[in-house]
Amino acid sequence: MYRTHTCGELTAKNIDHVVTLSGWIQKMRKLGGMTFIDIRDRYGITQLVFDEAQNPELCRKADELGREFVIKVTGKIIERSNKNKKIPTGDIEILVSELLVLSKSEIPPFTIEEETDGGDELRMKYRYLDLRRNPVKRNIELRHRMAREVRNYLDLLQFVEIETPVLIKSTPEGARDFVVPSRMNQGEFYALPQSPQVFKQLLMISGFDRYYQIVKCFRDEDLRADRQPEFTQIDCEMSFVGQDDVLAIFEEMTKHLFKQVKDIQLNHNFPKISYEQAMHEYGTDKPDIRFEMKINELTDIAKGKDFNVFNNAEYIGAICACGCAEYSRKQLDALTKFVQKPQIGAKGLVYIKLNEDGSIKSSINKFYTSYELQKWAEILNAQKGDLILILAGEKENTLNALSELRLEMGERLGLRNKNRFTPLWIVDFPLLEWDEETGRFYAMHHPFTMPKKEDMHLLDTEPAKVRANAYDLVINGIEIGGGSLRIYDTDMQKNMFKYLGFTQAEADEQFGFLMDAFKYGAPPHGGIALGFDRLVSLFAGLDSIRDVIAFPKNNSGRDVMIDSPSAVSEEQLKELNLKVIYNPKPNKI
Amino acid sequence: MYRTHTCGELTAKNIDHVVTLSGWIQKMRKLGGMTFIDIRDRYGITQLVFDEAQNPELCRKADELGREFVIKVTGKIIERSNKNKKIPTGDIEILVSELLVLSKSEIPPFTIEEETDGGDELRMKYRYLDLRRNPVKRNIELRHRMAREVRNYLDLLQFVEIETPVLIKSTPEGARDFVVPSRMNQGEFYALPQSPQVFKQLLMISGFDRYYQIVKCFRDEDLRADRQPEFTQIDCEMSFVGQDDVLAIFEEMTKHLFKQVKDIQLNHNFPKISYEQAMHEYGTDKPDIRFEMKINELTDIAKGKDFNVFNNAEYIGAICACGCAEYSRKQLDALTKFVQKPQIGAKGLVYIKLNEDGSIKSSINKFYTSYELQKWAEILNAQKGDLILILAGEKENTLNALSELRLEMGERLGLRNKNRFTPLWIVDFPLLEWDEETGRFYAMHHPFTMPKKEDMHLLDTEPAKVRANAYDLVINGIEIGGGSLRIYDTDMQKNMFKYLGFTQAEADEQFGFLMDAFKYGAPPHGGIALGFDRLVSLFAGLDSIRDVIAFPKNNSGRDVMIDSPSAVSEEQLKELNLKVIYNPKPNKI
Repeated sequence: MYRTHTCGELTAKNIDHVVTLSGWIQKMRKLGGMTFIDIRDRYGITQLVFDEAQNPELCRKADELGREFVIKVTGKIIERSNKNKKIPTGDIEILVSELLVLSKSEIPPFTIEEETDGGDELRMKYRYLDLRRNPVKRNIELRHRMAREVRNYLDLLQFVEIETPVLIKSTPEGARDFVVPSRMNQGEFYALPQSPQVFKQLLMISGFDRYYQIVKCFRDEDLRADRQPEFTQIDCEMSFVGQDDVLAIFEEMTKHLFKQVKDIQLNHNFPKISYEQAMHEYGTDKPDIRFEMKINELTDIAKGKDFNVFNNAEYIGAICACGCAEYSRKQLDALTKFVQKPQIGAKGLVYIKLNEDGSIKSSINKFYTSYELQKWAEILNAQKGDLILILAGEKENTLNALSELRLEMGERLGLRNKNRFTPLWIVDFPLLEWDEETGRFYAMHHPFTMPKKEDMHLLDTEPAKVRANAYDLVINGIEIGGGSLRIYDTDMQKNMFKYLGFTQAEADEQFGFLMDAFKYGAPPHGGIALGFDRLVSLFAGLDSIRDVIAFPKNNSGRDVMIDSPSAVSEEQLKELNLKVIYNPKPNKI
Repeated sequence: MYRTHTCGELTAKNIDHVVTLSGWIQKMRKLGGMTFIDIRDRYGITQLVFDEAQNPELCRKADELGREFVIKVTGKIIERSNKNKKIPTGDIEILVSELLVLSKSEIPPFTIEEETDGGDELRMKYRYLDLRRNPVKRNIELRHRMAREVRNYLDLLQFVEIETPVLIKSTPEGARDFVVPSRMNQGEFYALPQSPQVFKQLLMISGFDRYYQIVKCFRDEDLRADRQPEFTQIDCEMSFVGQDDVLAIFEEMTKHLFKQVKDIQLNHNFPKISYEQAMHEYGTDKPDIRFEMKINELTDIAKGKDFNVFNNAEYIGAICACGCAEYSRKQLDALTKFVQKPQIGAKGLVYIKLNEDGSIKSSINKFYTSYELQKWAEILNAQKGDLILILAGEKENTLNALSELRLEMGERLGLRNKNRFTPLWIVDFPLLEWDEETGRFYAMHHPFTMPKKEDMHLLDTEPAKVRANAYDLVINGIEIGGGSLRIYDTDMQKNMFKYLGFTQAEADEQFGFLMDAFKYGAPPHGGIALGFDRLVSLFAGLDSIRDVIAFPKNNSGRDVMIDSPSAVSEEQLKELNLKVIYNPKPNKI
């Protein structure tokens, strides 16, 4: 037997018992004739003591141990003279009488402590050691607890978890599909699902009116900071529901998770903000509403003077940073640099300082009178001591830049407290979005989304104005998930494919089985998918999803620990009837 | 609102309430001036009634409906004159006052009833309709309930569910790996895991001492009747355990599942039978012990007469079929044909009838006296009225044939009751098995399995005799799962790779990261993986795993519903730097 107890459970109540523990050596120190060792397992840390006076041989053996050795010890629990109030086992220690080394350890490539000296790359290469560290371990345990609470909640509501296939069909539209060559079907490929969308809709047609799945999905695309080629979704679908039914269920689920996992009671209904309003007030469809600082449009009022930057702008907008009138030149320059970063792309930043003494100072003093600027301040509801920041230019870009600037100011002002959570729903998304490059409309959510009945008449004349029964859940500026009501009628779906530029043949080839399915009695249905990795990282207070994934990939889609992807043998390729045709510069990172 | 209640919950208690239901039309019939419609959803069936006298227009509208239409109705609950005791809602019906057709349906390609007229291929093509049928729906719900109970059990025992990656590394050994070309890493491939084996071992090294996952695994191989290219495992691993610890936990889990899901209390400890004993007594390592009928060896006693079939045989074995002495010529011929089938491959069948009158009749009367045959009967513990069936030949093949014959006789004698469950453990598997074709040893379980300490000294001299700390869970003749204690020492693992014919370079290339990991303090660990599809199909009383999978593939690995796998576009291949080089005869089925 390797252990009678874990390293996290023994207290003063157990004094005088003889126990056996197994675990890793966290720390060793010698003090006079005593050797103290902290032994660690998943559950905690217990102090071991070896007394040279009582057992010199054992003490010598202990002195040969090192950090991260795996040992098994037996001994009597005694009271500690020097108690450690920070850990549950801090009142006791084990006076060791037997010691067995189960595994030795070389010196780890980084320290295995709360804070480590290991850089990102090193931690990923030795991820199995990184996972020993408390913060990383806690994330993985948090993830498990959250998955369990999601299941508990949905199970109670009679949702059925159903596994949908991982080897599905590749579609020409699926530019970001991973494909999988089939050995048994020569020259043919499966694809890995970007989502189980079509299958969950088929399940609704099958009559499973409440489906869910915590499921891996896959996307082969350039990875930005917070993307992974494989990611996990809480995927759900319901029949005989309207939008409010779906929102109510998943709002409750979100509250349930906050309550159960973080003991945070969210009492109020989540605000529902239309896409249009969100873009107008926050410049983004995923606003962080932990703080106000809404965007105000100044386009009309600011034009018509000699300042051509504004006169030529499609849009002029501003935010008010409360209490920032005393920002220095240097601070304002830093903000200007911030908005000029290529990924934000503003040309420049205009400021107006509403000084405490009532004077107004701005970078556009020579074009506008204080009286005029005071009018703007009123629009922004700005007070003495506040700083107004203005951007101008092409509308979409400027709103985006204002959104980024707003977040930056929120950050600087400490308004984005990681322990406060402000969920909201964005609703009334546009059905379609225009793509300049290809000169056609794309589905903003996906081609199965139901347009709003009252906008249907605009489909032929003003398609960009048609709103969809689509919604996103946003928490603290992070898009946690989204969904929609779906089309459940063959003709409407056919039409939708037409609007999206599919030929009849393409639509049939790719989604014929779904349109066939609609012919046999499809119920009204809708659903949602939540990004589980993001949700967990939000709960964990992390900025990246990487540390809530046990074995993540890096930004090049590589697992540096197992060194994957990698070349495969010629024989393997031959069996698959494949040839790698072109390999000029392997962009391994 | 689509419904106030489901179609499975209204009873006499609800009489006079006005309710709204939505669902599919299961059945329609006219009776005098009344139209009766059974409306179905996931929860049950409720009878609707339309009264021509009260509402002729609505009744006409109802008459235009058809099977599988999706409708929404509102009406008052009334008592049924002709009660149906078979269903929970059988005491009431809804007198419909409002009717809305949500979706029409064409006539389905097969009847959607308990028993259907649809063949396998048709049911798979229209799987979404097949899933409407009660027996298939019940299987999917059973699967969900079992997954939940597995999680409940393991969660309580502090197992952590951890997701391991799906995009992993292809190894030259992984002949049956599905590979996935990477767009970002040109010419390189991921592989889909045949099991999360290495990752769960790394998690043990990380200190997660109790891990599990209900996880999809993948194998690209010719599919026999009961295999799928993607399948689901209950995958588990534990640290600081011996074999008995693992067996105890998963024996309890099995009992828990039987109790919770089927209300079957398995009181006794599962028998533990060594591989050697199982092969000896049952001719297989997955014996069905719902019935006795053990194999007895007659090699020594049966040789030395004029019967050369026996004299030349490496092995002679027999089973006793109780009460079958009266088997006719025809029945015996059928058994002979059975054992001569190519997949069983016996040359012929020898029988001995122990007639009720004490006489002995056999197909080898001219070679053996009744006295001699009586001796054999004693070995088999055969009584008057019994039939002894004997096979002879090469040992392994003959044992296998006897095992098949035993199962066949069990079937014929009704000894394989699907509602009785007899789990057992097979233990002490050989570590290695010899492959004639390649002329080398392979790991019987996998290369990470720990040999038995007491057999370790035989590794160099008699490797075939070395037993492993490996075990299988077998229920009713079905291998439900298996596992082992693992090697946790770099040197032993290196040695093992050597025994298995890996060069040092190959071992490093493929498993270097694991052997590296062993250097930093690996705990003793072991685990198990259970085939979840098989376990559910066993619980469902099915012979195939296909009907416990929502969207299964056929024997050629095809999903005939979505028509996958399929060709991908030239552009897609180009982006992946791949070319399909050879495609003589697409073996689509």
